[in-house]
Amino acid sequence: MPETFAARFAAVRKARGPLVWGLDPSGALLEDWGLGDTPDGLDRFADLVVPVAAATIGLVKPQSAFYERHGWRGMRTLARLAAAAREAGLLVILDVKRGDVGSTNDAYAQAYLGDDAPFAADAITVSPYLGLGAMGAFVTRAYQTGRGLLVVTRSSNPEGRAIQAARSERDTVEETLLRDIGLLNATLAPGTVGPIGAVVAPSTQLPALALADMNGLFLAPGVGAQGYTPADVAQTFAACPDRVMPSASRSLLAAGPDPARLRDTVAALAAQFH
Amino acid sequence: MPETFAARFAAVRKARGPLVWGLDPSGALLEDWGLGDTPDGLDRFADLVVPVAAATIGLVKPQSAFYERHGWRGMRTLARLAAAAREAGLLVILDVKRGDVGSTNDAYAQAYLGDDAPFAADAITVSPYLGLGAMGAFVTRAYQTGRGLLVVTRSSNPEGRAIQAARSERDTVEETLLRDIGLLNATLAPGTVGPIGAVVAPSTQLPALALADMNGLFLAPGVGAQGYTPADVAQTFAACPDRVMPSASRSLLAAGPDPARLRDTVAALAAQFH
Repeated sequence: MPETFAARFAAVRKARGPLVWGLDPSGALLEDWGLGDTPDGLDRFADLVVPVAAATIGLVKPQSAFYERHGWRGMRTLARLAAAAREAGLLVILDVKRGDVGSTNDAYAQAYLGDDAPFAADAITVSPYLGLGAMGAFVTRAYQTGRGLLVVTRSSNPEGRAIQAARSERDTVEETLLRDIGLLNATLAPGTVGPIGAVVAPSTQLPALALADMNGLFLAPGVGAQGYTPADVAQTFAACPDRVMPSASRSLLAAGPDPARLRDTVAALAAQFH
Repeated sequence: MPETFAARFAAVRKARGPLVWGLDPSGALLEDWGLGDTPDGLDRFADLVVPVAAATIGLVKPQSAFYERHGWRGMRTLARLAAAAREAGLLVILDVKRGDVGSTNDAYAQAYLGDDAPFAADAITVSPYLGLGAMGAFVTRAYQTGRGLLVVTRSSNPEGRAIQAARSERDTVEETLLRDIGLLNATLAPGTVGPIGAVVAPSTQLPALALADMNGLFLAPGVGAQGYTPADVAQTFAACPDRVMPSASRSLLAAGPDPARLRDTVAALAAQFH
């Protein structure tokens, strides 16, 4: 079996800390950085951020939407960025939030998971509205190729509550997802950290969740611009501090485009999680 | 204001019927058709199906996953296929099921909605796990550019029930979505069919939904290979028969690659909805 994403994350966390830098090049940011809101500008963004990331942290998270808005050329940049980042020793979480019926998920898994995938990443985010039970192809491929799957469970925005806090029999949707992910991980990777993780916002206001039992990694989005702090991350994931990947995007990118200033800003936030 | 998607669908429905042909070129299908499971094979698939569709029906629905698995070249084919189909007079529903927080949805909307979008479609599917309230950018852009938004509400696969049938206060998630979509449409397009539609499986087994009040169009997936019939569609949408777009994919593609046979198969199913 290939080395698991959980094992690679544990090594990266020890060496460089758990912070994930979200690479979300909006049109406004590309203009602000003087790169131009074009496929060429997006290419220059990729060339600029990868070395800064490799010099400071262990994980990056490109958000697919900001590459898709530049069409197939933007998707070509996304593939190139992911390959360059992995080449530089970074772990790449592709934030694509895909999710569909079973046969379609099989095609998505082929696109994003495995060495022969055109957009090869170390882990991807997936969206569970069509059910965790429909994600067999994602689960199997992640397990077989040593990749991670991060199921959006509790998102970082308030508008998700109407669905995420709804109740299916006794439990809420998010509680049900965590429990079902835990069952999958217990089968796939008994006694260790399994391949299926969850996206869980670092909220200290919402009801606590049973996180440690899930036996997987957590992506904690929304640090910085969305208002969550390192203290929120520490408090929310107190039961399993070594399994959390806190992620900040806009608050870090705002320090660019000067590479030295960008590097200092990323390193300063990373230090708060070491 | 530009002509609405609902108005274009009404015209297409009158002239050619409501059937939507799902264009899901799996690796197995490309091999089976002798095209090769490669970006070039995908290009030949696009060249083959667009004229058949234009000769028989009014709407096509490419499923993004099957283009993404061929990387940026596959996405280039997707853009080309969509443009060629619209050029040939077809309405194009891009089945992408995107959905994220607000700022990211803005980037997705730029990718798929509007004349200047790189993947310009007449309507797209979106996935609501992060909340309908986070979709303001999708809603605004769809309204302003005369495009449609189809919110996955009741999917055609059984695994989605754990989330879709969960209860938020009095209503289930799917009932809440339909009601909230109805409120949006009443504001955006009072007295007519609004820009926000819903994906609703043509199931006669599940509890009925208040469909007519939503004041929008419905995409009814799963006809054919997933087991739903034209009679199921008629029964499920009896309250608003002129607002439903039934969709079949694999059961039609199985008749290829011979264009004449493919055309006859598509036309035969289309006739059942006229």
